[in-house]
Amino acid sequence: MKTLGTVQSHTKYLWFDTKKRKEFIRITDDVQKFLNETGLKDGFILVSAMHITAGVYVNDWENGLINDIDAWLEKLAPEDPNYQHHKTGEDNGDAHLKRILINHQVTIPITDGKLDLGPWEQIFYAEFDGQRKKRVILKALGI
Amino acid sequence: MKTLGTVQSHTKYLWFDTKKRKEFIRITDDVQKFLNETGLKDGFILVSAMHITAGVYVNDWENGLINDIDAWLEKLAPEDPNYQHHKTGEDNGDAHLKRILINHQVTIPITDGKLDLGPWEQIFYAEFDGQRKKRVILKALGI
Amino acid sequence: MKTLGTVQSHTKYLWFDTKKRKEFIRITDDVQKFLNETGLKDGFILVSAMHITAGVYVNDWENGLINDIDAWLEKLAPEDPNYQHHKTGEDNGDAHLKRILINHQVTIPITDGKLDLGPWEQIFYAEFDGQRKKRVILKALGI
Repeated sequence: MKTLGTVQSHTKYLWFDTKKRKEFIRITDDVQKFLNETGLKDGFILVSAMHITAGVYVNDWENGLINDIDAWLEKLAPEDPNYQHHKTGEDNGDAHLKRILINHQVTIPITDGKLDLGPWEQIFYAEFDGQRKKRVILKALGI
Repeated sequence: MKTLGTVQSHTKYLWFDTKKRKEFIRITDDVQKFLNETGLKDGFILVSAMHITAGVYVNDWENGLINDIDAWLEKLAPEDPNYQHHKTGEDNGDAHLKRILINHQVTIPITDGKLDLGPWEQIFYAEFDGQRKKRVILKALGI
Repeated sequence: MKTLGTVQSHTKYLWFDTKKRKEFIRITDDVQKFLNETGLKDGFILVSAMHITAGVYVNDWENGLINDIDAWLEKLAPEDPNYQHHKTGEDNGDAHLKRILINHQVTIPITDGKLDLGPWEQIFYAEFDGQRKKRVILKALGI
């Protein structure tokens, strides 16, 4: 399937200020709303966490699994007072590692004016050191 | 190096239905074939698994290493009856975590009409809960 | 925010030949210089390691944290003589796994002619099997 047109770029920022230090927030509807605003028919949307203790991932919208992901990240990248990073006065070394593990960005394809996601794919913002204002950039490039 | 032209978008879906629950399938040739079909000279190809228990990665085409990756994923994201996700009746909690670890998408650069991969880079589909029909989207945006 | 124009693509390669086997090298300024050379106002830059024992990631420019990341990768993807990959004569099985864990590419958004990074985001090249010439591709697509 081929699409031709004049290239356009659109940019928007999502703001978060979570109540808890760690939260997993579904943002599929926010990305869909952004796509509607752009009017694009085909292309890519980059969804990227702009703070280095947060991530963005695509997986299941099921609370049990979200708890499993949370526990798994804690096991592989645990809170620990002994990170060298903490000598700077920070206490969030684990949050930097969790961002690496879950990754901080995804590219969502647009086809026929829709987010071209699989049947169970949902986009999540993963906050690992919240309770302050943080941003995610949405940038669409396409036709 | 600069290239100018009219932007084009091309989309194709690869289908998989693996015999085993876990399989690692090289798809570099499928992506190359897609690129040939598009006729694009420069741009990006997104290669993204559309099911949340499968991934896409770029690494070595060497069976020993593929076995190492398989064992390593099993160690860090093991099969376990106790995932909370399993309370929904599912049994594939580990597959969701393995997808996160290996990641579910890559962006392949196109230069001079070729996949601009390093000398040993090969593209793989990683199935963690197969034996049913699942898709990968290929979307090219470029000139 | 919407931008219109004629699409352009630009490509450049960064070469590395590290003194140590493992090194973490900040490349934000190299990516900024590339952006300046392109003159692009809006779009994406793909930054992707072309060798399968190296990665690219975005995180903090703080030496304590870089040491934490190094130790964490060593813990989760340790050097080990027993990788099956080593039967080919290689000794870098761990480096292939570390590349998977930290990921090998990022997409950097361009807005108003600038790298649209968060306040602490810095781009790093992560070498896990160096002391030889290796490349990173920079490819920009935009307006």
